[in-house]
Amino acid sequence: ESDLNSEERAAADEIIDNPPAAVQGSRLFHPEDTIVETAHSQIGGDNFTMMAGPCSVESAEHVMKMAAVAKEGGATVLRGGAFKPRTSPYSFQGLGEDGLKFLRAAADAYDLDVLTEVMDQDHVDMIAQYTDIFQIGARNMQNFSLLKAVGKTNIPVMLKRGMSATIDDILNASEYIAAGGNHQIIITERGIRTFDNKYTRNTLDLGAVPVLQKLTHYPVIVDPSHAAGHTEFVIPEALAGVAVGASGLVVEIHDDPAHAFSDGAQALKPNEYLEMTQKAAAIREALNMPVHEKSEVEL
Amino acid sequence: ESDLNSEERAAADEIIDNPPAAVQGSRLFHPEDTIVETAHSQIGGDNFTMMAGPCSVESAEHVMKMAAVAKEGGATVLRGGAFKPRTSPYSFQGLGEDGLKFLRAAADAYDLDVLTEVMDQDHVDMIAQYTDIFQIGARNMQNFSLLKAVGKTNIPVMLKRGMSATIDDILNASEYIAAGGNHQIIITERGIRTFDNKYTRNTLDLGAVPVLQKLTHYPVIVDPSHAAGHTEFVIPEALAGVAVGASGLVVEIHDDPAHAFSDGAQALKPNEYLEMTQKAAAIREALNMPVHEKSEVEL
Amino acid sequence: ESDLNSEERAAADEIIDNPPAAVQGSRLFHPEDTIVETAHSQIGGDNFTMMAGPCSVESAEHVMKMAAVAKEGGATVLRGGAFKPRTSPYSFQGLGEDGLKFLRAAADAYDLDVLTEVMDQDHVDMIAQYTDIFQIGARNMQNFSLLKAVGKTNIPVMLKRGMSATIDDILNASEYIAAGGNHQIIITERGIRTFDNKYTRNTLDLGAVPVLQKLTHYPVIVDPSHAAGHTEFVIPEALAGVAVGASGLVVEIHDDPAHAFSDGAQALKPNEYLEMTQKAAAIREALNMPVHEKSEVEL
Amino acid sequence: ESDLNSEERAAADEIIDNPPAAVQGSRLFHPEDTIVETAHSQIGGDNFTMMAGPCSVESAEHVMKMAAVAKEGGATVLRGGAFKPRTSPYSFQGLGEDGLKFLRAAADAYDLDVLTEVMDQDHVDMIAQYTDIFQIGARNMQNFSLLKAVGKTNIPVMLKRGMSATIDDILNASEYIAAGGNHQIIITERGIRTFDNKYTRNTLDLGAVPVLQKLTHYPVIVDPSHAAGHTEFVIPEALAGVAVGASGLVVEIHDDPAHAFSDGAQALKPNEYLEMTQKAAAIREALNMPVHEKSEVEL
Repeated sequence: ESDLNSEERAAADEIIDNPPAAVQGSRLFHPEDTIVETAHSQIGGDNFTMMAGPCSVESAEHVMKMAAVAKEGGATVLRGGAFKPRTSPYSFQGLGEDGLKFLRAAADAYDLDVLTEVMDQDHVDMIAQYTDIFQIGARNMQNFSLLKAVGKTNIPVMLKRGMSATIDDILNASEYIAAGGNHQIIITERGIRTFDNKYTRNTLDLGAVPVLQKLTHYPVIVDPSHAAGHTEFVIPEALAGVAVGASGLVVEIHDDPAHAFSDGAQALKPNEYLEMTQKAAAIREALNMPVHEKSEVEL
Repeated sequence: ESDLNSEERAAADEIIDNPPAAVQGSRLFHPEDTIVETAHSQIGGDNFTMMAGPCSVESAEHVMKMAAVAKEGGATVLRGGAFKPRTSPYSFQGLGEDGLKFLRAAADAYDLDVLTEVMDQDHVDMIAQYTDIFQIGARNMQNFSLLKAVGKTNIPVMLKRGMSATIDDILNASEYIAAGGNHQIIITERGIRTFDNKYTRNTLDLGAVPVLQKLTHYPVIVDPSHAAGHTEFVIPEALAGVAVGASGLVVEIHDDPAHAFSDGAQALKPNEYLEMTQKAAAIREALNMPVHEKSEVEL
Repeated sequence: ESDLNSEERAAADEIIDNPPAAVQGSRLFHPEDTIVETAHSQIGGDNFTMMAGPCSVESAEHVMKMAAVAKEGGATVLRGGAFKPRTSPYSFQGLGEDGLKFLRAAADAYDLDVLTEVMDQDHVDMIAQYTDIFQIGARNMQNFSLLKAVGKTNIPVMLKRGMSATIDDILNASEYIAAGGNHQIIITERGIRTFDNKYTRNTLDLGAVPVLQKLTHYPVIVDPSHAAGHTEFVIPEALAGVAVGASGLVVEIHDDPAHAFSDGAQALKPNEYLEMTQKAAAIREALNMPVHEKSEVEL
Repeated sequence: ESDLNSEERAAADEIIDNPPAAVQGSRLFHPEDTIVETAHSQIGGDNFTMMAGPCSVESAEHVMKMAAVAKEGGATVLRGGAFKPRTSPYSFQGLGEDGLKFLRAAADAYDLDVLTEVMDQDHVDMIAQYTDIFQIGARNMQNFSLLKAVGKTNIPVMLKRGMSATIDDILNASEYIAAGGNHQIIITERGIRTFDNKYTRNTLDLGAVPVLQKLTHYPVIVDPSHAAGHTEFVIPEALAGVAVGASGLVVEIHDDPAHAFSDGAQALKPNEYLEMTQKAAAIREALNMPVHEKSEVEL
């Protein structure tokens, strides 16, 4: 079930009661930064990766248009949901495999990687045919069967922090993936649930970024869209994520947020997105953080 | 996907943006209490149901012994984990199907129902052969694929509140089960994650019990073991759960907590459990709440 | 500043970095229950004390009427606010010293003790002329100047847990009172701030009651009114507080909640209050907990 | 008690039940940014203000040394505590008025403003002789008597957000100051209490900064030291605070953190502080935010 060698197993036995028991994820075992490699991106280390796209894939045309925007802002990863985790069973649940086809075509047209959520372990093989990076959503962060399923693939996994997950919890969750042999893991801070959600949807815990970077060698990125919940707060939170030292951002964009199939309130319009990416690059440069990517597009 | 009739569908459309969109779970549509019926229990309404057993099924002998204790205290449901959701992948993960066989045998020997956790949608059919009630754990409360899978069975489902789930969240989660046609649902308050976990593991939100009872017709029970985290606090929290009006309790018991395979710190010893069940019955009687069960064992 | 003797001082030095540094409040130094003695009440130990009254003192006539109701339900303490901590400066701030006079007169007419909030250290001497017990509200739990001021009096102090105060925090706050020489302290659990406040105002942390009772010798009581926020949830939460083992309850009552000057939504009507006190007494009796008070009124 | 005119009073009456009832603090009444003016600083608007100094004033010599460091990094405000709110009554409580004298002398030697905490309304007049800005600490955010007392002075007030205060709560608290006639108010985000405090002390809620800036005209600054709790996390959180658009930072500095009288774990060493101020200025420049101050020192 796990690919620990005997030395790691001994360490695991020792620290099992001292969480996080993220043996393979720990810098103690692996001090160097993990660089997650995809066709168009190098995620982690000194790299900065922009990931953008619509919340839901809405149509072949729409996602193609959004891919063009994403690319223009320097993104190397196109995000988009085809299977949506909705709080209510009566809400729009996504286009399914058709959505994946549209998303793949759009990404290919612009030399982008695909990032899309897998919610169901039985979909792993199917979605693997379309995606470059699996997203595990916040609600599934401790869906251990799903974590094990993606851990058996060789496709990178972006693991989102659960709304009430401690830092130890997410590191332990990452270990379920690593235990299957897949070490291409990206940790995403996307906001936690606190007592105040009147004006923002969640509380973006940016202090968790340097803490995670100290504890683990996996790249840590920030999703400001779900925490902010409202467009006007997404850009400041995104820039704060850059300044705090995240290895990338994942944001939702939409050309007509009022008619988005889901989460329109928090989607950046193309011009807002481009403003954000320029400011993000300016901050990186001001802090002497590299802004180049493997792809030729400069952020 | 859902069995809403046209009238319900209209209502659902109307309230979709006013969570909880738990159409079928709402008292507005179904004012009378739902009584979940199993071979040995009637859960909900004026009934009070005791559910007890070890955290993990450890062996055929041990679970048999625990079944005897559970029965002695008036339980009509034997709980026990064969597939365990563990924070670390290196922790004991349960005995699997063998554990289910031991659990079933013990329950049958004492005329008890079986309650056990299903963590994986691919296990639903297999576990269905052994259990009378599926448990969906707190970490899987929004594992929508799993909820849909148990929603397609006709086996009652005990849905535990997630650690950071609002009351609306758990009602919406229950709707994923109901939308599949399964309305035999039990809601369980088991403690939420708050800022203080030095002395107790979670904060038991007993105020949620009357709130849930007002909003939904499903029975609401309390799990004091996971919230208290330490044996000495389990009994007071359990009795508070009785007094607040819960339809039952689910507790962990163990004859040798120091050597339990999991969660020993919070397991009641047999004598503690029996003391608790007597006090629980005394409170029910003092408050003129019925203490009889379908089974002949009086609580 | 403090009345620690040399032995206590040494202990304090030792545990100063191991909170709670509540030296004088700790059962380690003082294993026996503290019994807070007032003219009409013995609070703590095996006693159970009912405290009731209007949120705000509204008039001489009204508080007199409420005192009669409180007494009828077995209360030995009449609560009422004359100086109100209001979130907005434009809300009703209380009747001030006139309110205290009305409160005192009502309490005296029915042989009750007075419990009223002091919000300002400069009011301590004045309020001391009217009250039997000072209340320190949740918002002032760490107003150290105020704690020191009441710590220099010999009047009992009811200290309410702050909305985000840990158990250690409230014990440390109590030590500010004790350090001044006043050991007549009552700890009150009144609900904490968590992520879910849609249906209830705060989350009553009843698990904190047995934890506090283990750590400190001071009596621990429960205020269900502020946590529940709505009348219909006050009684179940109150009964849960009795069952969990609290040494008393403090509740808000009003004969015309819709026109109460403050917090009407959570005030029990007289008949609801009387129903609650009867049920509370029934639970105490069922659990073999004494229900007698120093005063001849039986709860 | 309040200086609302009749129009404001009407508005207040209308919104009293729709918090925040921060009438005078609202942008609805006062769309332009408030600029808090002190001898050496202009706080708010396009300005960026650095505030630095030791947690506690430790000696005349030490605070003088820290003032030199603060100035070198571009600070125009010297912070330092002479009266300390300590969780335990047995912890170091500050040097009192002597500390204020040392702080004032150090600030004067380097043309800096003084910022120091007032914990007790009876100290307001005395501290007013030494300070340019009153600090109201997180624990006293709803100490309404203290808020009213500083509201009657004409000295600027820096109001720190309480650990569990919502955005509405802090705006309402600010209104207690404004109602007294003092509109020179600075709002400080310093971290809130959440479920995860293993690695950081509090969760810095940077998303609250743009929200507050939208709701109120008062300047909003960030204190990263208390949230981070550990030096290594202070700089990233500070830079995130700059990028999110705060009007300033307040940080703790110490040349020998291991021997600081209080909070050494989170104090920046001089070289760390200078690195931070340079990076902060670089981010401001990259984002085309002005970096000049009224004082001639450039940040």
